[in-house]
Amino acid sequence: MRTIEWKDGMVTTIDQTKLPHKTVTLKITSCKEICKAIKTMQIRGAPLLGAAAGYGLALTAFHSKAKEKHHLIKELDASAQLLRQTRPTAVNLFWAIERIIRKAKKTAGDTRTVAAIVVKEAQKIALEDVHTSRKIGENGAVLISENDTVLTHCNAGRLATVDYGTALAVIRAAWTGGKKIHVIATETRPLLQGARLTAYELFSDGIPVTLVTDSMVGYVMAEGLVNKIIVGADRIVKDAVINKIGTYQISVLASKHKIPFYVAAPQSTFDMNRLAENVVIEQRDAREVTEFAGTQITPKGISVLNPAFDITPMKNVTAIISEKGIIYPNSDSKVSAN
Amino acid sequence: MRTIEWKDGMVTTIDQTKLPHKTVTLKITSCKEICKAIKTMQIRGAPLLGAAAGYGLALTAFHSKAKEKHHLIKELDASAQLLRQTRPTAVNLFWAIERIIRKAKKTAGDTRTVAAIVVKEAQKIALEDVHTSRKIGENGAVLISENDTVLTHCNAGRLATVDYGTALAVIRAAWTGGKKIHVIATETRPLLQGARLTAYELFSDGIPVTLVTDSMVGYVMAEGLVNKIIVGADRIVKDAVINKIGTYQISVLASKHKIPFYVAAPQSTFDMNRLAENVVIEQRDAREVTEFAGTQITPKGISVLNPAFDITPMKNVTAIISEKGIIYPNSDSKVSAN
Repeated sequence: MRTIEWKDGMVTTIDQTKLPHKTVTLKITSCKEICKAIKTMQIRGAPLLGAAAGYGLALTAFHSKAKEKHHLIKELDASAQLLRQTRPTAVNLFWAIERIIRKAKKTAGDTRTVAAIVVKEAQKIALEDVHTSRKIGENGAVLISENDTVLTHCNAGRLATVDYGTALAVIRAAWTGGKKIHVIATETRPLLQGARLTAYELFSDGIPVTLVTDSMVGYVMAEGLVNKIIVGADRIVKDAVINKIGTYQISVLASKHKIPFYVAAPQSTFDMNRLAENVVIEQRDAREVTEFAGTQITPKGISVLNPAFDITPMKNVTAIISEKGIIYPNSDSKVSAN
Repeated sequence: MRTIEWKDGMVTTIDQTKLPHKTVTLKITSCKEICKAIKTMQIRGAPLLGAAAGYGLALTAFHSKAKEKHHLIKELDASAQLLRQTRPTAVNLFWAIERIIRKAKKTAGDTRTVAAIVVKEAQKIALEDVHTSRKIGENGAVLISENDTVLTHCNAGRLATVDYGTALAVIRAAWTGGKKIHVIATETRPLLQGARLTAYELFSDGIPVTLVTDSMVGYVMAEGLVNKIIVGADRIVKDAVINKIGTYQISVLASKHKIPFYVAAPQSTFDMNRLAENVVIEQRDAREVTEFAGTQITPKGISVLNPAFDITPMKNVTAIISEKGIIYPNSDSKVSAN
């Protein structure tokens, strides 16, 4: 099953907050429910957020009772606005919204025609993501060698995309290409996407994986247990990669230990006219840190920081892998053709 | 109340695995129970392990039915052996055992005399620790300035010692000396000593504290939110400081961001004739990572690393604060007199 699917005005997806122990399928029929699922991280992962935003608009179009095109466009604009307010950092969400709204506005014809085009465009975004993920895997696999141990952070896997993944796409492509590799997954506090999602995906696929806490990254590098890093991205700007909190410190440790640091992401994650200082870093609810599996772990009333992302300067990035090829941001030869 | 106390053949201490929500007092009457409490980390923290080991031997001596000195010494040797097998990394435990066994062997007289000397020596170790902690606080406070934000890792506080702390002793002394400071505490996975114990101690004392996950250390430094680091130590060797897993990566990030990195520890933590490569780094049960509060958080059967400590090279350490003064390991002027 794909992570997100559309059928006759209903979006089906997996509740990622319940994994790995419960596979709960969400059946969603409105953009409002999509927004709620995004905010609570039942749906998460930058490329998946793009696909989900597309489907959110598709639900609005499909179920609209508008009789005139400008009414439908107004409804779509309202849904787009709700979607934009869910999470500020991953750019794929904004990219998908703009793409669909532009398409809808350009389409001539009655509301049924426009609605059909919106649904079709959303389907296209999701389908493209599957192909993009496969292509990222193919492109990146050349960077992974036999017997590598690759460290990854958070979940940039099948569950972060419509299928296959970004960082984990590269790992999957190397593995299915016959390379014997081992993965070290960081648990990724506070929401444990590494322990819950990445470990689950790789374990299910039979790819050898060892889980560590976020505090053990320096240790595994100092012990010589890691020789590549690969992570996803929520937004790639001119001077930096913005990704799950903890990515920055992994990149500093990778530089220190001279370990290549790779980022895998589709072109829809690129926002190259912007600088990192102009990106909003989402701050999430303190309870994600103070509670663990529903149990309060800290003294009540404690002050907490909970940024969801951090900023990895481009100079710490060895290469960026996209569906178009490999970019070496700190090298004179900018792009490796593929 | 002190973290550990002795009265008439009974040791009283707080079960640190239950904090901050339950204050459960353990009443211990045998060395075997002391060993169990150490292994399960109901008793933890390098200086406290020294005091607890001393009291473990005191319990054996106090309750011994031996009629001859060499029988009592044999019992003490057996207890010492049990204690040595509890946890391999913190040197204070070994230091306290050797000190008491040596004292017992040197003491002339009958078993009651020797037993009384053992109890007295254990009491002395605990009492000295209180004074040592106060002195560490005094000595270190000069390094903390008005309006500093100090990041600390794990718990090197009152609960890691008989009273007052090591790293937190410095923070307490600066605070009670009138300096307005703020503390950032890392939660310290897997056992959350930062979230449970450090946050609790500082919050109870009214010292401003903000909790972050271990993955946020790079972020808070990059944002300019931290200007000093202070941690404790489990063993200080010639070339390194061995402390809670995660300390090494904090030291690398501190170097990168030019933030002073201080270590506070009593002389009983020093093991200066040894190199880090000759220290056993304890590997603990995988379930500390895969379970939380009895709930499995990862796929079942997942492979895990769980080293309890890591190695911070001495070159990453700005200064070491002990009861004797401040040592600058990378400076020509080795010791600041105090």
